[in-house]
Amino acid sequence: MEQPIRIGIAGHGNLGRGVEAALANNPDMQLVGIYTRRPPEQLKPLQAGTPVHAMETMSNHAGLIDVLILCGGSKEDLPQQGPVLAALFNTVDSFDTHARIPEYFAAVDAPALANSKTALISAGWDPGMFSINRVIGEALLPDGATYTFWGKGLSQGHSDAIRRVPGVAGGVQYTLPVQEAVDQVRSGVRPTLSTRQKHTRECFVVLQEGADAEAVRSAIVTMPHYFDEYETTVNFISAEELRRDHGAMPHGGFVIRSGNTSVGNAQVIEYSLKLDSNPEFTASVLVAYARAVHRMHKLGQYGAKTVFDVPPGLLSPKSAEQLRAEQL
Amino acid sequence: MEQPIRIGIAGHGNLGRGVEAALANNPDMQLVGIYTRRPPEQLKPLQAGTPVHAMETMSNHAGLIDVLILCGGSKEDLPQQGPVLAALFNTVDSFDTHARIPEYFAAVDAPALANSKTALISAGWDPGMFSINRVIGEALLPDGATYTFWGKGLSQGHSDAIRRVPGVAGGVQYTLPVQEAVDQVRSGVRPTLSTRQKHTRECFVVLQEGADAEAVRSAIVTMPHYFDEYETTVNFISAEELRRDHGAMPHGGFVIRSGNTSVGNAQVIEYSLKLDSNPEFTASVLVAYARAVHRMHKLGQYGAKTVFDVPPGLLSPKSAEQLRAEQL
Repeated sequence: MEQPIRIGIAGHGNLGRGVEAALANNPDMQLVGIYTRRPPEQLKPLQAGTPVHAMETMSNHAGLIDVLILCGGSKEDLPQQGPVLAALFNTVDSFDTHARIPEYFAAVDAPALANSKTALISAGWDPGMFSINRVIGEALLPDGATYTFWGKGLSQGHSDAIRRVPGVAGGVQYTLPVQEAVDQVRSGVRPTLSTRQKHTRECFVVLQEGADAEAVRSAIVTMPHYFDEYETTVNFISAEELRRDHGAMPHGGFVIRSGNTSVGNAQVIEYSLKLDSNPEFTASVLVAYARAVHRMHKLGQYGAKTVFDVPPGLLSPKSAEQLRAEQL
Repeated sequence: MEQPIRIGIAGHGNLGRGVEAALANNPDMQLVGIYTRRPPEQLKPLQAGTPVHAMETMSNHAGLIDVLILCGGSKEDLPQQGPVLAALFNTVDSFDTHARIPEYFAAVDAPALANSKTALISAGWDPGMFSINRVIGEALLPDGATYTFWGKGLSQGHSDAIRRVPGVAGGVQYTLPVQEAVDQVRSGVRPTLSTRQKHTRECFVVLQEGADAEAVRSAIVTMPHYFDEYETTVNFISAEELRRDHGAMPHGGFVIRSGNTSVGNAQVIEYSLKLDSNPEFTASVLVAYARAVHRMHKLGQYGAKTVFDVPPGLLSPKSAEQLRAEQL
């Protein structure tokens, strides 16, 4: 039996807790420590006995961790932490600000290369699994079109935006794919679809006492970038209903590549996810990629990497021989 | 502009013709020759002007071809050709006898390694894309179950079996997934499904003059391995109907991984294909992997490989920088 892969978790929000849960399903890995900015004694790990440390102590633990999974946010945490920690550890993160990926990649690549570390950025499902399917779909069907639909799913960013509207005490937003558009794409035609034709947005809002429902509704549906380009529905509910019915974090979606291999022959590839818990699934992706990072590091493949650089077999705990015999 | 990748095609059946069609959609590749066991002058390439050569001349052309795509069958052709040609060329093939893959891998690996060639075996969709999704699904959701459904699709092997039944003048067989089973799996429960519960088989048969329909039906539905474990329907049609309605080679199917990341949270991953032409899609996969093989060879990655060894980014004509900027 090989030594287990020693994993550290940096950050203990929804994603960090998801990584803890995922590690329990992967016996070839061992959680050696959780690092937090909160006072460590306040943090309750899933498994009693998991060591919890202050974030500042991490640099003393470099020799004890094979791969560090960064569970901070893409806005504030990762742009700071990613480059610093890639100089000390092999890392995996879920940086998901699509437009800033090239810049973040460069910022992580230099310290990782200089210190012979392997740093995989932007793992998860989008970016991540969806990205892989966009690239493979396009490579297999060059004469074609790619469509990404999201939902039904809770959007954290849009829920935050709702909660900033004056008069709103609480709320959540779900993104829904438009079924007619999905059906059309699945049929093998290649429609041109506007933003409004692909997704609708559904909001569940708790009003502050005395707030004007119509003013709140109007402020939401006209909000630039977030809602104005979409068909948006606003439902007013009680605080109790919000707690009871909207506490989960479901998400999902599909990537469809529709193309032709000759004039008469249409081919449709679809990859879809139906997730009860968005952060737990993202965490499971990070954990599988941590295994790949550990192996790539042992092979001397240093620097920043993305999911496009990782052979699928490296994600599996099974050997190449076993995979060929059992799963090819 | 880089030099185009010089591709050779060995064998010009449905798959070889599909590769020809696929190459027309990939401007970074150039078809430099088709090799056939038939008299070369009898072969009609899709593009007039494509050089056609006798199979025996291939060994004289080693320096002219970057990757040779083997389009022979898994039963007779590839076990002979694969090891011989992997000593002379970088190769890609679609060897699909699942049970014999480890043996075939070893037979190709030795000559490829000894001659510093890269030989990718068993590309296509199953084995191939479906295999990748089985491996990734299991890696992401270790607490789960994997289901592969095929169809609706024309099965070549089963159609051949029908045509060998006494009294049969012609026929085709379609494999169909059982919708209730698919729905149950998609819902996130993990049913135990027997062979009979997953697929049905539908046959369209042309009788020879004077043949006994009931005897033919009975011979088909009780045929061991091929039909006896399935719910099989036999429809009798005219030779004209067979020609008119059953000349295409549609296929497809889905790989579903259903798992839990924690007790309450089920996650479902589905990869599905809906193919108007099975051989043209398989050919498109071979062509994309030929690009990857060319790159892996340039990186010094010699020996036999499978789809599990290939980073997704190598399938795309785009650079790693472009993929990160546009498709991550």
